[in-house]
Amino acid sequence: MKYSKIICLDFTGDELEAALWEKIDHLCDTRIRTNNIQSISADDLQVADCLLVKLGAHIDKKVIDQLPALKYIGMLGTGYGGIDTAYAASKGITVTNIADYATEGVAEFTFGILLEYLRDISRAKRQARDGDYSDDFVGTEIRCKRFGVIGLGDIGTRTAQLAQAFGADVWYWSRHRKPEIEAAGIRYCELDKLLATSDIVTINLALNAETEGMIHAARIKSLKKQAIVINTSPMELLEFDALVKRLRKNDLTFMLDHSDEMTVEQLVAMQPMNNCIVYPPIAYLSREASKLKKDIYIDNIESFLKHKAKNKVN
Amino acid sequence: MKYSKIICLDFTGDELEAALWEKIDHLCDTRIRTNNIQSISADDLQVADCLLVKLGAHIDKKVIDQLPALKYIGMLGTGYGGIDTAYAASKGITVTNIADYATEGVAEFTFGILLEYLRDISRAKRQARDGDYSDDFVGTEIRCKRFGVIGLGDIGTRTAQLAQAFGADVWYWSRHRKPEIEAAGIRYCELDKLLATSDIVTINLALNAETEGMIHAARIKSLKKQAIVINTSPMELLEFDALVKRLRKNDLTFMLDHSDEMTVEQLVAMQPMNNCIVYPPIAYLSREASKLKKDIYIDNIESFLKHKAKNKVN
Repeated sequence: MKYSKIICLDFTGDELEAALWEKIDHLCDTRIRTNNIQSISADDLQVADCLLVKLGAHIDKKVIDQLPALKYIGMLGTGYGGIDTAYAASKGITVTNIADYATEGVAEFTFGILLEYLRDISRAKRQARDGDYSDDFVGTEIRCKRFGVIGLGDIGTRTAQLAQAFGADVWYWSRHRKPEIEAAGIRYCELDKLLATSDIVTINLALNAETEGMIHAARIKSLKKQAIVINTSPMELLEFDALVKRLRKNDLTFMLDHSDEMTVEQLVAMQPMNNCIVYPPIAYLSREASKLKKDIYIDNIESFLKHKAKNKVN
Repeated sequence: MKYSKIICLDFTGDELEAALWEKIDHLCDTRIRTNNIQSISADDLQVADCLLVKLGAHIDKKVIDQLPALKYIGMLGTGYGGIDTAYAASKGITVTNIADYATEGVAEFTFGILLEYLRDISRAKRQARDGDYSDDFVGTEIRCKRFGVIGLGDIGTRTAQLAQAFGADVWYWSRHRKPEIEAAGIRYCELDKLLATSDIVTINLALNAETEGMIHAARIKSLKKQAIVINTSPMELLEFDALVKRLRKNDLTFMLDHSDEMTVEQLVAMQPMNNCIVYPPIAYLSREASKLKKDIYIDNIESFLKHKAKNKVN
């Protein structure tokens, strides 16, 4: 079994190594790379049965209707909010994504930026590099802090476990209770209380209709004074204007790794605030995670061909 | 019981809060602060029974001989290499230090600078602050790395435990085997092999006659290519010239928090090398550690008065 025609949308070629593109080429008769579906010939659109897309791709009803033979959409990433998966399903199209490839990478990054902040590591490094070895640093420890994890998926769970290893007093909120996590001493707490009482909060939720805006104005207002909030998840989980308003009070530190969905206006609003530390979108970027992600991507494409679809999201 | 006369050598007063100085004042008739023992009157030298000193103090035979009534030397710090403790003991003088106050602080700092390096966090932070959110970062993870801890005192043990929590493959070398640590899955390895095989090495040894220069030229040469070595212990543990020679090959990363004992020449030799990251002496500086350190200091001074000397080192 092979795909007849694969369309790679918005790929530059750098996303996968040559050896992996070669593997994909073995799975199809033809592969077309384009930045614009409209530029593809009517004949090719008629027969394309596989569409490969990248994070942020918008695949709506209109695009799907242009591809009558489409059977498979492979997302090179976790988030697939831009794909009309329900409509795809109604047309018999399987959509797959790549989850959990960066669990460890994101959890490690979370503690990296947390410790950077708590110990002022960037300043220390720069200062010593400039020949100044003075020690006017007042760091603080993770140990004994009340640490609240919102969302116990893979990344949230790993984050909670690491926080516990650091000796924090770890609490979680998640849509479903996790008895096995609670047995390990990580305690459940209602979301409102978790936000209002934690010294350190990490947000580890997937974005969906239920979670969008879940950290709303009242919840943002309730955050403990001097709390540290780390968000490696989509910013749409928070009510942005309320967050900016709270940050302007300068009694909260917010750290995030910039997600593609953020607007220039949002970034500009955050930039002047010293208590808002924006990172490039690198929480998910580790050598190990990148390798695993690519391997899963190829495996997804191949498994669907073998009628054993993996990581189907619709 | 009270001390008759306490001499505080090289203290500026900022080392302890007013309330703690007040506590000390309750433990003595008189307290003298000086930067120069020679400037103290002969009468005062005759009766001084308590000497309070700071890290790096040099208290040799000559100084001790000037203080015939001395009974107690209190070091505000862990290292007491500059104090002739044997001679002090021969004169019936108890020397105390403060150990273990910063176990957690140093272990957390170690992972802070390790993750900073592995994920290039300072550059990411600076770049985004300047409005550049591009993601050309190739991070790597602690998980699955071979992690070697040299010296399983309190800090080494805590470091090994955290490395294990991060999913590293953790090995240790220590003068004495630690069955309880091995039972937890942290394995013993001969020092030479540990150095030659670890991807990440942390040095957590106390400095003494036995450990000085222990990481000698041959051992430094044997370190695995591209290894990361973190030293929060005194630099005298390593053969400095051999380290510089190896670092110039640019196939090793060395991180340290600058210790007072380092010479200007050593710092100047290290500064131009990008693979040698020197931090100010802040590994031990966390709010929690500072508080504990001061509390232990006062307790040491007080306990000796009560004939229940704590943290005696001679």
